[in-house]
Amino acid sequence: MRKELFDHEITILRDTFRRLLRRNANTNLAKLINKTHPADLAIIFRYFLDEEQKHVFSIMKANEPTAAFLVELDDIILQKLLEEENSERISALIRQAPVNDQSYILGNLNEEKAQSVIDLLKLEEKEEIEELMGYPEDSAGAMMTTDIFTLWQDITCGEALKTLQDQEDAEMVFYLYITDDDGRLTGVASLRALATSQSGTKMRDIMIKRVHSVRPETDQEDVAKIVAQYNYLAVPVLDESEHLLGIVTVDDVVDVIREEATEDFLQMAGAGKDREILLKSSWENAKARLPWLFASWVGGIIAANIIGAFEHMLESILALAAFIPVIIGMGGNIGTQSSTIIVRGMATGRVDTGSELKVLFKEIRVGMILGVLYGVLLGLFAKLKFMNSDPMLGFVVGMSICASMLIAVAVGSLIPLFLRKLDIDPAIATGPFVTTSIDILGVLLYFMIAGLLLNI
Amino acid sequence: MRKELFDHEITILRDTFRRLLRRNANTNLAKLINKTHPADLAIIFRYFLDEEQKHVFSIMKANEPTAAFLVELDDIILQKLLEEENSERISALIRQAPVNDQSYILGNLNEEKAQSVIDLLKLEEKEEIEELMGYPEDSAGAMMTTDIFTLWQDITCGEALKTLQDQEDAEMVFYLYITDDDGRLTGVASLRALATSQSGTKMRDIMIKRVHSVRPETDQEDVAKIVAQYNYLAVPVLDESEHLLGIVTVDDVVDVIREEATEDFLQMAGAGKDREILLKSSWENAKARLPWLFASWVGGIIAANIIGAFEHMLESILALAAFIPVIIGMGGNIGTQSSTIIVRGMATGRVDTGSELKVLFKEIRVGMILGVLYGVLLGLFAKLKFMNSDPMLGFVVGMSICASMLIAVAVGSLIPLFLRKLDIDPAIATGPFVTTSIDILGVLLYFMIAGLLLNI
Repeated sequence: MRKELFDHEITILRDTFRRLLRRNANTNLAKLINKTHPADLAIIFRYFLDEEQKHVFSIMKANEPTAAFLVELDDIILQKLLEEENSERISALIRQAPVNDQSYILGNLNEEKAQSVIDLLKLEEKEEIEELMGYPEDSAGAMMTTDIFTLWQDITCGEALKTLQDQEDAEMVFYLYITDDDGRLTGVASLRALATSQSGTKMRDIMIKRVHSVRPETDQEDVAKIVAQYNYLAVPVLDESEHLLGIVTVDDVVDVIREEATEDFLQMAGAGKDREILLKSSWENAKARLPWLFASWVGGIIAANIIGAFEHMLESILALAAFIPVIIGMGGNIGTQSSTIIVRGMATGRVDTGSELKVLFKEIRVGMILGVLYGVLLGLFAKLKFMNSDPMLGFVVGMSICASMLIAVAVGSLIPLFLRKLDIDPAIATGPFVTTSIDILGVLLYFMIAGLLLNI
Repeated sequence: MRKELFDHEITILRDTFRRLLRRNANTNLAKLINKTHPADLAIIFRYFLDEEQKHVFSIMKANEPTAAFLVELDDIILQKLLEEENSERISALIRQAPVNDQSYILGNLNEEKAQSVIDLLKLEEKEEIEELMGYPEDSAGAMMTTDIFTLWQDITCGEALKTLQDQEDAEMVFYLYITDDDGRLTGVASLRALATSQSGTKMRDIMIKRVHSVRPETDQEDVAKIVAQYNYLAVPVLDESEHLLGIVTVDDVVDVIREEATEDFLQMAGAGKDREILLKSSWENAKARLPWLFASWVGGIIAANIIGAFEHMLESILALAAFIPVIIGMGGNIGTQSSTIIVRGMATGRVDTGSELKVLFKEIRVGMILGVLYGVLLGLFAKLKFMNSDPMLGFVVGMSICASMLIAVAVGSLIPLFLRKLDIDPAIATGPFVTTSIDILGVLLYFMIAGLLLNI
């Protein structure tokens, strides 16, 4: 119910923008931009034509909401808009954003242009940005907020409250970070603890001492795990000497969790890992999906060769051909179940190092149960359907589907477990690999079992 | 790098617990429990035997961390622990938790026992819990925090700060909620805005007036979308007369986003939607996965019948059988790509109502590009491999794979789009449906094309 409303609001807003654009009503457009939340504006941009995007962007002021809007935009749209913009305007726009957003926006320009924008900034800003841009992509360092202040542990709550009131620049305050004489992080305190304590109390007496922290090079997925597990609003990023470099905030973590899940979904299906695939052209779309289909094509060729090699068996018992789809299909489906359960289990921490064998054996037990069940069912069907064929046909088909499903759970479990051992993201095209392996192995097993049991 | 460390810490902690358990060292165990974060303890419980779980739980005190630990536990473990516990202890335990956590814990008991626990609570607590338990599962009402206070819009910042200091019970304060004379929510203010304003300023002058809110019956997925889109720390839940019932906080939203993604992953693979499937027995596991395999089995039987009906064609050109796997395999894979892109696009708001046709047509264009490419490739291969077969065989195989891939993108796109139109979760086993449909349609098309083009 509410969802419809949400979609509905966006649609109304989009149509209003379109109307004003057609009438070239720039004054009203500027007003509407002002009234629209940057995040909503970023979504509406998905539905604008290139011309409309350029038009709206050209009348946006260089202020904080515009900077926020740029950060919320899909990369592909952001890149297109900035490509045609001169360095002066870009530099004016990003000056309004926190450093992590600045470095994110600059990361969407080509190197030369990014440098020309940076050159327009003040020396201090320049150094900060260059530091952040030096951290690996998808690391805590690249996404941390650096507009953060610390409090010395021996000041009183009253003094802390005054310091807080002078911090105009600091981003939304989540926690207060407390340091010792050497500037090392020793604890955190909540704003509430500060507000509800006597003004003479020292910070060191209200702070929490055991603080989870990350390093700037920590991968964003691991940062997200910590924030999610301990219900934090922010996690501090420390250097080797335990000085506070910045914080990663929960709103960015929410984005990371959604984005990582989307990437895993696409990768599992062998559709690349580009979250914005829906915004890409058909050609680029096809290009991203082509390689995994090629793997499947090669698998199909191998399967065709196997069947070709057993042609003499097909010649005597044609009915064998009828069961090829169900044998590889059931295998493919149960194998996909296994790999999905395991890949997702790894992403959410439910399959940790050490429990691999336990997981594998359980999958094999499940494969046995379901393999025997569907083997008997299919065997009976084959027996009834092809009464006048070889009396053993039903048995062969039943055995084969059982074997194919067993192999499938094993392959479906082993591929992601093995990829992780090699430190490769287990989601990478696990899906197509599993179904293709089953195509080959299923067919091979089927004809080998037939060769053993039938009089051919 | 950091991930290993994280896993490693949990392993050490688990081993320490195990050692103390074996020695029955209850005093040391109690100390260790005290030092362990409730969220970590909940994870370690996954690796304990039933006996170990019971032992550790029996020496846990009825305090806030224990209540937090219960909420973090996997449902299946929580249910097992509480099943064997008497109502008095459960009631003592949950008394330490906020109302939404209380109602969550009680939701994991059978009705009779839940009632007997509720009967032990004070009248006021009882009413609050029963109200929350009355909201649908997975709604904003069921997950909202109700320990929340409001401030009248005409009080000054100084007065507000004093009120805040008296709020001992309120959960972590995210925002200050401001109401008018009738108690309707009129705005929110951040703690920072309060702390940095002159103490004589009225709240109405520092508050933000346009506030996104939800209703108690709003689905948790939609709540999550709002929090994620606007980077909120909490979203207010209002009744029809705009009175504040509670707030949904970002830490719960983080859990929702992860859980919904996991459910979608499992559903797409036809493995049920139970996030805790890895904790279930092999039998329960098999039971959850059986129905979607049955769909695939029925599809396989239909495909077998189709091939059976075209037996005469196979009889003259045996080589036809060799290409069955590649034709349905490529179709299945590209169809899964389409449905994954679309299902995930719907979940993240990238495929909204109104853009369905655009998305469908793009998928069809992608299917054309890839279908023609792989059709030509496979046709050439078939031609070379089976030189002495019918000269048209290559053409038939090429045409068929192209047709199968085209049908696959259409089916893969239409099934989720159609499910959403019917207001059914598009993730529901879209995967198995797609591959099974392709098994049937692919084989049918293949033999029809062969019938048309070959001299049989």
